[in-house]
Amino acid sequence: MNAVPPGGTIGILGGGQLGRMLALAAARLGLKTHIYSPETDAPAFQVSSARTCASFDDKSALEAFAAACDAVTFEFENVPTRTVDIISASRPVFPSAATLAITQDRLQEKGFVAKLDLGTAPFWNIESSYDARNAFANIGAPSVLKTRRMGYDGKGQMKISAAEDAVRGFKDFGSVPCILEGFVDFAFEASVVAARGIDGAFAAYDPPENVHRDHILRRSIVPSRLTEAQADEAKAIAKKIADALDYVGVLAVELFVTKDALLVNEIAPRVHNSGHWTIEACVVSQFEQHIRAVAGWPLGDPARHSDAVMDNLIGAEADDWRGLAAGGGGLHLYGKSESRPGRKMGHVTYLRPKSA
Amino acid sequence: MNAVPPGGTIGILGGGQLGRMLALAAARLGLKTHIYSPETDAPAFQVSSARTCASFDDKSALEAFAAACDAVTFEFENVPTRTVDIISASRPVFPSAATLAITQDRLQEKGFVAKLDLGTAPFWNIESSYDARNAFANIGAPSVLKTRRMGYDGKGQMKISAAEDAVRGFKDFGSVPCILEGFVDFAFEASVVAARGIDGAFAAYDPPENVHRDHILRRSIVPSRLTEAQADEAKAIAKKIADALDYVGVLAVELFVTKDALLVNEIAPRVHNSGHWTIEACVVSQFEQHIRAVAGWPLGDPARHSDAVMDNLIGAEADDWRGLAAGGGGLHLYGKSESRPGRKMGHVTYLRPKSA
Repeated sequence: MNAVPPGGTIGILGGGQLGRMLALAAARLGLKTHIYSPETDAPAFQVSSARTCASFDDKSALEAFAAACDAVTFEFENVPTRTVDIISASRPVFPSAATLAITQDRLQEKGFVAKLDLGTAPFWNIESSYDARNAFANIGAPSVLKTRRMGYDGKGQMKISAAEDAVRGFKDFGSVPCILEGFVDFAFEASVVAARGIDGAFAAYDPPENVHRDHILRRSIVPSRLTEAQADEAKAIAKKIADALDYVGVLAVELFVTKDALLVNEIAPRVHNSGHWTIEACVVSQFEQHIRAVAGWPLGDPARHSDAVMDNLIGAEADDWRGLAAGGGGLHLYGKSESRPGRKMGHVTYLRPKSA
Repeated sequence: MNAVPPGGTIGILGGGQLGRMLALAAARLGLKTHIYSPETDAPAFQVSSARTCASFDDKSALEAFAAACDAVTFEFENVPTRTVDIISASRPVFPSAATLAITQDRLQEKGFVAKLDLGTAPFWNIESSYDARNAFANIGAPSVLKTRRMGYDGKGQMKISAAEDAVRGFKDFGSVPCILEGFVDFAFEASVVAARGIDGAFAAYDPPENVHRDHILRRSIVPSRLTEAQADEAKAIAKKIADALDYVGVLAVELFVTKDALLVNEIAPRVHNSGHWTIEACVVSQFEQHIRAVAGWPLGDPARHSDAVMDNLIGAEADDWRGLAAGGGGLHLYGKSESRPGRKMGHVTYLRPKSA
């Protein structure tokens, strides 16, 4: 693919806060964006050059959208692969449909990670009550039952401590394909946000330490408690995954950090909440980095000039925008009209002089 | 005025790169923007929530625009005061029409500065050939003839070394009102970019040193060669001016730095090219700071975490976007369709660890 020059248009499937911040980053580079979202009040519509409001299975809308773009990407990993196939017929889509197929299915993803000889929690496929019992017999307690598809922010997850729990959970999830994962007794969680260019160039940001509450990311901290060797290992894990996927764009690899090892928890084929601090702490943010990769531009320098702490603003926490604006941090509000419990409404990043 | 809450709309008169970067900054805060520009391909249209393409004397378009906004500002100081008057009838406009009246006329501006007991080049009003001769007799050589209104980037300026030059220049400028200014033999140029809130709060960024070529800003450097005492004095000058104007928003004061003094060259009642480095080197940029002031929000911290050098990309210099993107700086391209000689097409900011 030739690079998309300034003035060209990047199409983005999905119009939430990630699409919005991607659009803002593209604008810095003189690139236009075209947002495709089924939601009439998609936050990213407010900052894009062009908008299509249509469902992800509207073939003619997708074809017209593709025709109006030079390259297409997405802000969420649950884009239907059929949607990507329709667009791919006429325009490059990054990351690829093949990557989506792997990352949309926890079994495929775990299998892919294991095949790369990377550490992961033990896991077992479940497609029946028999499988559920069998899985528990193999994985044991405590373990976590997860639907193979469409889970995020803890949705479609359940802690399991007996075989009967696993069977009941499987049924409660509507008997859709699941996996049972061994519960990892981690010291803390970390992630690597990294980019790979069309030319295979690779650039990883320093891995943040992540704090979750109720399965939702609350805080990311850089530098993390990872040793330098662990941080290097984390980046190497991301590179191995990106190379194996022939990946183009930004990806995030969520890690469990145990006493002995870094275990891959999840791969997110997109910009990631744990990389928001890069807007303030790096010259080229994860959003710009993703746009650069997708547009075929050289990647930016992922070095950070400062330490950073990023706090998510969930639900009503963003209501005190005045106090937050006065608090010395970099405040980001996502333009969502309605604040609901658990909904990500914004975030704020605090910088400190670089310590390590 | 009550603060404009997230979800509210800031109207911006003018749709060039400054309006564009204001719109991007507003979006960070969850504010919508409505751009008003007579140019069909205004760069800021690409990133705003709403657009009006109409002339600045279209009363009904201006009234509809005002009705759609919660507060209104502008990106260039030559907005007709009648335009501001029409909008002010129904919506707050910051900075005020009174400020514009002063800063749009070099004679008024110089008189205002002198009345504040701030240093400035000697100046003389010219409205006739007689005045021109008289002005030269008083100011002497070398001096600079400037039209009182509508000058920018060196347009409407001429160096004068004899009385006849002054008379001819005045006629060449169409016999419009001019001033003759004594030429200042400065060591270097600097500027203060500062904000004043509706509540009178004041926040100044560290003053950059500015390098011009052919009257166009080429480079801004922070820290500048100003001593700490001079930097404080520069900020105090900006505060004195802002307070006297009961100013709301970001303003820039351009300074000549001589052996003995800081002399006020010009006041720009808007975000300023010499403040672009604040996007990378501060948590809250001049653009966000201006939006905060205009929306009645608390001002952000103007502290910088890094040293910075900002280079403008003029005309064809932006054509090498690929090399610039690979150069380790923060690249900004303005989305202008056509590159013309002397046209500001973008800028790039390079950071260094903070030295002073």
